[in-house]
Amino acid sequence: MAKTLLDLVKECDSFPYFEDNAEYYLSHLKNYHAFKVNGCDAVLGYLPNTIVEKFHWIENDWQVDATSRTVTLMAAPGATPKARTEIMSRLLAEAVRRQTFEVLNGWRHEMYPIYGPGGEFLLEMERSASPLFGITTYGVHMTGYVEDEQGIKFWVARRSKTKQTFPNMLDNTAAGGMSTGEHPYACAIREAAEEASIPESVFAERAKSTGVVTYFYIRDARAGGETGLLQPEVEYIYDVQLDASHVIKPCDSEVEDFRLWTLDEVKESLKRGEWKPNCATVMIDFFIRHGILTAENEKDYMEIVARIHRRLPFPTATYN
Amino acid sequence: MAKTLLDLVKECDSFPYFEDNAEYYLSHLKNYHAFKVNGCDAVLGYLPNTIVEKFHWIENDWQVDATSRTVTLMAAPGATPKARTEIMSRLLAEAVRRQTFEVLNGWRHEMYPIYGPGGEFLLEMERSASPLFGITTYGVHMTGYVEDEQGIKFWVARRSKTKQTFPNMLDNTAAGGMSTGEHPYACAIREAAEEASIPESVFAERAKSTGVVTYFYIRDARAGGETGLLQPEVEYIYDVQLDASHVIKPCDSEVEDFRLWTLDEVKESLKRGEWKPNCATVMIDFFIRHGILTAENEKDYMEIVARIHRRLPFPTATYN
Repeated sequence: MAKTLLDLVKECDSFPYFEDNAEYYLSHLKNYHAFKVNGCDAVLGYLPNTIVEKFHWIENDWQVDATSRTVTLMAAPGATPKARTEIMSRLLAEAVRRQTFEVLNGWRHEMYPIYGPGGEFLLEMERSASPLFGITTYGVHMTGYVEDEQGIKFWVARRSKTKQTFPNMLDNTAAGGMSTGEHPYACAIREAAEEASIPESVFAERAKSTGVVTYFYIRDARAGGETGLLQPEVEYIYDVQLDASHVIKPCDSEVEDFRLWTLDEVKESLKRGEWKPNCATVMIDFFIRHGILTAENEKDYMEIVARIHRRLPFPTATYN
Repeated sequence: MAKTLLDLVKECDSFPYFEDNAEYYLSHLKNYHAFKVNGCDAVLGYLPNTIVEKFHWIENDWQVDATSRTVTLMAAPGATPKARTEIMSRLLAEAVRRQTFEVLNGWRHEMYPIYGPGGEFLLEMERSASPLFGITTYGVHMTGYVEDEQGIKFWVARRSKTKQTFPNMLDNTAAGGMSTGEHPYACAIREAAEEASIPESVFAERAKSTGVVTYFYIRDARAGGETGLLQPEVEYIYDVQLDASHVIKPCDSEVEDFRLWTLDEVKESLKRGEWKPNCATVMIDFFIRHGILTAENEKDYMEIVARIHRRLPFPTATYN
């Protein structure tokens, strides 16, 4: 059966809302432990209770409180990010040694940042482990498109069949996660070159920052590894209007092929559920900003707009 | 002191969030009665308790439950919108006769719709009374702009000094509320003509639907009448790129004057707090979509984007 656009958004923004059913929301929260660092009040992420049970928590490094359902990283208050990161790394190294978690088989050797209130950098952790702690992750997504009298066309990527996550699904023109220290624009210009062979000069001239898409994802089987892990995400969005003569080519093995799709082809492939869920939301956001989806032609218009700009219940990054 | 853009957004999106402080949010909710209609489970709005006390509730028409803090319009389940509307109108007529509420001095003779789950039209009520019940109201806002090698300029309206609400403040090029039966595009094309003398043919060619801005406003003194009333709002947004030769002129007495403002002039006037709050959020949304505000130059970027696309805790309209 064809999926509606709201179905696609819900696959991506799957964490419940307090306002929809307070009782259900509060009981759902009991499935998780809050992740905190010593000396900072903010909740930085959520670990499923089943994950908390499996970790071998190192004494003095960690405090696990089953009553308040809290996991606290016990570096001294005011410790350096480096000191906190070492504690996290010790824990994860032990989990790798014991082969505790499937998601860690996809170790990326990439460090993701964790921010406290006011955007304070608290620590960093290995990317593949981030969903175990349910921390907010940051990335960039860009849509390369061509527009002429015949209409609009989109450069759509198909993910490699051998990719660990969401193999063979459709993807935005380029996208990528932001490691510690990276800023959105710098990440975008790098990913455009690496994934879609878009020269820096072309990106600098043609790309426009057009907002941010946020959602709170509960990982399903397609994400690979354990299901039910949380992944609150922030995706900085760029539109890249290209000349008709500009041909996008894969640059690394992550993309199977690139093809210029018509608007109808994109719409149909969305309905068939062929897009990686968060890439579908990026296309939907493009459609809304460009007047392709309107209140008059999409019955779930408002719900879609609100859900792809979800206010995440965690401190988030600032870059200036 | 200069206001930040987030300050401006917070003036408009002033209702608290559960996630920021669950205890405060739940205790804040105790200041209100939920508005419901008989036979429908959904909360349609919130009335401050002080307003509930002042109304002369007509027996059999209304059920006021102080324990569950609920005000229910008691038309039979499955009643027609007309039957429900008559009950509401009787109540409001009595309030006008008794001069109970200041906001009703601004009686507009315009009916605003109230929707239930799935966008079902339940009833309508006089526009000026809508904040007494805290129902979601709908409108359109459009930004007329000119772009050339020298940059971007905006057609900014200054509200009439004698306007009841937000007199003398800066406003978008055109904007207006949507009465029962009106759809966003039809409302926008009408307001463009009425308020900014933009011919229908120019609007049809130049305007683009670019999204929706939503926020949950607690009315302050500048809105006129009682303060503390709730006003959850949905504003459908249009960008209208005009030729440099197109001059916008006021068409009715609501606008003092129109002038083409540079980007810097708009930014400075925002900081000085000269804009009607919700019109400020519409400009901010434009800045984000057009790459003027970015994650790199605005520290509150994410919080701003999420708050001006707030998911309202009420059923909302659909138009198809």
